[in-house]
Amino acid sequence: MPPNEKDMENELELKWERLRQAMAEAGVDGCLVATNRNLYWLMGRVVGGYFYLPVEGEPHCFLKRPAEVGRVACSAIRKPEQLPEAMAGAGLPLPRRLMLEDETLTHAEYVRLQRVFASSEVVGGSQMLRRLRAVKTPWEIDQMRQSARRQVEVYRQIPSCYRPGMTDLELQIEIERLMRLHGSYGAFHADGTNMEIFMGSLLAGSNAEVPSPFDFALGGAGMHACSPLGANGTRLEEGMAVMVDMSGNYTAYQSDMTRVFAVGRLPEEAVRAHRVSCEITAHMEATARAGVSCAQLYRDAYDRAVSAGLERNFMGTRLQAKFVGHGIGLDVNELPVLTPRSQEVLQPGMTFAFEPKFVIPQVGAVGIENTYLVTENGVEKLTLLDEQIVPLA
Amino acid sequence: MPPNEKDMENELELKWERLRQAMAEAGVDGCLVATNRNLYWLMGRVVGGYFYLPVEGEPHCFLKRPAEVGRVACSAIRKPEQLPEAMAGAGLPLPRRLMLEDETLTHAEYVRLQRVFASSEVVGGSQMLRRLRAVKTPWEIDQMRQSARRQVEVYRQIPSCYRPGMTDLELQIEIERLMRLHGSYGAFHADGTNMEIFMGSLLAGSNAEVPSPFDFALGGAGMHACSPLGANGTRLEEGMAVMVDMSGNYTAYQSDMTRVFAVGRLPEEAVRAHRVSCEITAHMEATARAGVSCAQLYRDAYDRAVSAGLERNFMGTRLQAKFVGHGIGLDVNELPVLTPRSQEVLQPGMTFAFEPKFVIPQVGAVGIENTYLVTENGVEKLTLLDEQIVPLA
Repeated sequence: MPPNEKDMENELELKWERLRQAMAEAGVDGCLVATNRNLYWLMGRVVGGYFYLPVEGEPHCFLKRPAEVGRVACSAIRKPEQLPEAMAGAGLPLPRRLMLEDETLTHAEYVRLQRVFASSEVVGGSQMLRRLRAVKTPWEIDQMRQSARRQVEVYRQIPSCYRPGMTDLELQIEIERLMRLHGSYGAFHADGTNMEIFMGSLLAGSNAEVPSPFDFALGGAGMHACSPLGANGTRLEEGMAVMVDMSGNYTAYQSDMTRVFAVGRLPEEAVRAHRVSCEITAHMEATARAGVSCAQLYRDAYDRAVSAGLERNFMGTRLQAKFVGHGIGLDVNELPVLTPRSQEVLQPGMTFAFEPKFVIPQVGAVGIENTYLVTENGVEKLTLLDEQIVPLA
Repeated sequence: MPPNEKDMENELELKWERLRQAMAEAGVDGCLVATNRNLYWLMGRVVGGYFYLPVEGEPHCFLKRPAEVGRVACSAIRKPEQLPEAMAGAGLPLPRRLMLEDETLTHAEYVRLQRVFASSEVVGGSQMLRRLRAVKTPWEIDQMRQSARRQVEVYRQIPSCYRPGMTDLELQIEIERLMRLHGSYGAFHADGTNMEIFMGSLLAGSNAEVPSPFDFALGGAGMHACSPLGANGTRLEEGMAVMVDMSGNYTAYQSDMTRVFAVGRLPEEAVRAHRVSCEITAHMEATARAGVSCAQLYRDAYDRAVSAGLERNFMGTRLQAKFVGHGIGLDVNELPVLTPRSQEVLQPGMTFAFEPKFVIPQVGAVGIENTYLVTENGVEKLTLLDEQIVPLA
């Protein structure tokens, strides 16, 4: 067995044990998982079927399509109605209290499983899974470091993609190609029914002000009314800021990083706002550590934006996002969230992106975003790349 | 008002009227839509909020984020709990029987809305919306024609992307760039919780045999266990078939087309199987029209695969897809589905992709896929491009 298979087994054991413990505390007898991100978290792969973990004992998977699943025991089924019989066949007692993914299964899928397990009490488990996933294992952190290193390599080469007279989309397309050649698997994983985004966001000029229907940090009109987000064909011109916030999806665990590029000279207002973003970030880096309140981190950032006279530019103009950071991992939007009213507190092993951004009308968006690992004594930056505005030739 | 705004109004009126009629037949008083594809279908745009259509009277939208919505009346809300009050404010009676999207809303979202409309009987509406969306309007058909034309232009240029010694992924990345430069908005829209696919599928050599967890026609190992589908880094070598099935997402309404490229000379078995796919397609084109059973179209295709001695290669080897075609439009997988047990019958205005494919071990996948419009007297092919195997220099 190759060592990474063995490492993966230990990794999965660690997660199963954490989930078993959380289930025991919640009085849950078993958890049945069927959606991609939770399958990957618990199996190290995506399969066509179900993964079941009892509160005591070994996991079992029920596959609708054949797949390699390492050492996990497996049964073949055609449809969910066969699950109780397949569980009995595998010697698994029916759970009295069964946990399902209420925030990623569709209503129809959830109700179908409720009927299949009519003798069980079915409870929603998405919040528990999300809380557990927020605290990363050492292996997951290593995966995020790998993503961050690749993302940094790609960002370093962005100036080589630029040619005068390009549109924002043309520049983004060359960056996408670079990302793919560096191992990005493409699909940008975000949690939430309508959270569709393609490889990331590149915003230039006035397009940075356009609100989007999605709950990402900034908007942009996008290319098409069916996908209204990000670059919209703006011609890149002298004095424009180009904010690049493209996905760090080089392993299953994403990093998140934003840097700003300038076409020619930016107005002093934009340069100053970028500096304020760096100062807000430096203050967060000096104060964040395990135990610190996420709401406090938001308020500190917001207060500094106000002190700089930039509250009307903070996280947008026409629509302002009410967060300055977010957990990240298998999805780009995990727990914790750095919002004014967050009840969450940083814990060791959490990873989050911090992105104090300012939109300057007519110029574009400025500011930086980095991904951090929370430790007992502070935070460690994973996205190590110069933070100044980078001139485009 | 620009003419396309007026056209869009007429287009939306047409859809609203069809939905109102279906609701009246089902005894439903109103339909509340909140997920991207149905929002686009009913509003011509994606918004952050809800679109409500009463069985009688004008639609109204409830926006959580500001958006242009043409002539549709609008109210701002912060959360779904404000919907009943906002509806009262807009003079809309509470529906006795309310339809929600049970197959695209998550369970948690659906239940939350059920609580908000506690005095209404809530029923699932996804199937009705899917049935209505299957029959395209003239404008939608025009959008699909536009997508098909762009897709054809891109496919024509695929040989120029090839360089000897490339991997399947390297070739796919150059095709992706070409697609984006021709106006693909990137995101490949598919219906279903776990149906994640990035821009399409390119399969070469033995990778064409690898089953995937997803319910697409063929599989492929993919780049990463978190996204196990499609190209996997296979070096393109003499005698390999390269099947290209990349998205036709150039308007909101996708076309779907597959063509095969050959590195050097393909074995006779692969060339013959490709010919059989063309013959199966020609037979379908000669027999399909409004009123024809989708199950019959599947059986005809399957029978011809059997007669050719290719049933073990039909739609895969290690795992064989049990369909040979599928409706297409805003999602790549719409109604009808061409399966052995389909109850569906072709109707004028339906659009579907037909893809009899064969997997030849060690060589790759061969066969063609085209997108068709159903008419009273036959089908019209939208993806007009030579169907022979194309040699790569």
